Amino acid sequence: MTNLEDTMRLATLSLSVAALLASAAVATAAVKPETAIRYRQSAYTMIGWNFGPLAQMVKGKAPWDAAEFARHADRIASLTPQLLEGFPEGSATGAKTEAKPDIWKNMDDFKSKMDDLVTQSKALADVAKSGDEAKMKDQFKKTAGACKACHDKYRNED
Amino acid sequence: MTNLEDTMRLATLSLSVAALLASAAVATAAVKPETAIRYRQSAYTMIGWNFGPLAQMVKGKAPWDAAEFARHADRIASLTPQLLEGFPEGSATGAKTEAKPDIWKNMDDFKSKMDDLVTQSKALADVAKSGDEAKMKDQFKKTAGACKACHDKYRNED
Repeated sequence: MTNLEDTMRLATLSLSVAALLASAAVATAAVKPETAIRYRQSAYTMIGWNFGPLAQMVKGKAPWDAAEFARHADRIASLTPQLLEGFPEGSATGAKTEAKPDIWKNMDDFKSKMDDLVTQSKALADVAKSGDEAKMKDQFKKTAGACKACHDKYRNED
Repeated sequence: MTNLEDTMRLATLSLSVAALLASAAVATAAVKPETAIRYRQSAYTMIGWNFGPLAQMVKGKAPWDAAEFARHADRIASLTPQLLEGFPEGSATGAKTEAKPDIWKNMDDFKSKMDDLVTQSKALADVAKSGDEAKMKDQFKKTAGACKACHDKYRNED
């Protein structure tokens, strides 16, 4: 390899690294803590909006409506994978938040609980397509359990 | 038809009507104005969270990334059809809101503007699958135009 080739490879590499750093800087700089907090609270609010009617049906407080159940379950399944990006490093404070700082100390555990919620809510949307009331109610409880497992450990409700 | 049959048909009909009314009461009673307001603001926040990175790319302030563009466009397309239910009758007041009361006076026009946003954002997600930068940028502008058309008429930004 000639010196010229070495120099050119190094120059190319430097450019790639610079591009990567610039891209990372844009991605990081773009999110203020208060923006992330507002975003994640919005995702939870939308999930709750859709979860409420399911709970009413499961508890027998609203008439059973399999199609309506499926519509809400679909939305929950599309929303849960959007939660995690609302917890970037540095967003433990910055606005009123119920998220415990432990989240960022145990991010692997938090992620695994989020993964479980994504899995359970996907299963809920899938089983809702069958219209099988007993299976839908059972999977609803598993999904609610995935919510609770994370809230118990990582949410300040007082 | 005997009198007994008449009576039974009437009783069955009354029960059906009662069930319908009960169901409507549950559906209506379930949503407080402040809950609807918080829900729709959450939907807008989530749309904004996904719209921002697209605007950055279109304006050349962030590196072009077709896959990232498509991911955000998909989410926007799944969120926009969820906005309208955040504007039930009676939710013009009840919490801080930028929604103008004109929305409920012109609900047909408001719905048609919402429909346009749903259509344009669906087109954005579809064209993003092609990876064609020029078409994606063009459809992004049309989608932003659909946002603006409604904000100009129905949003209080002061």
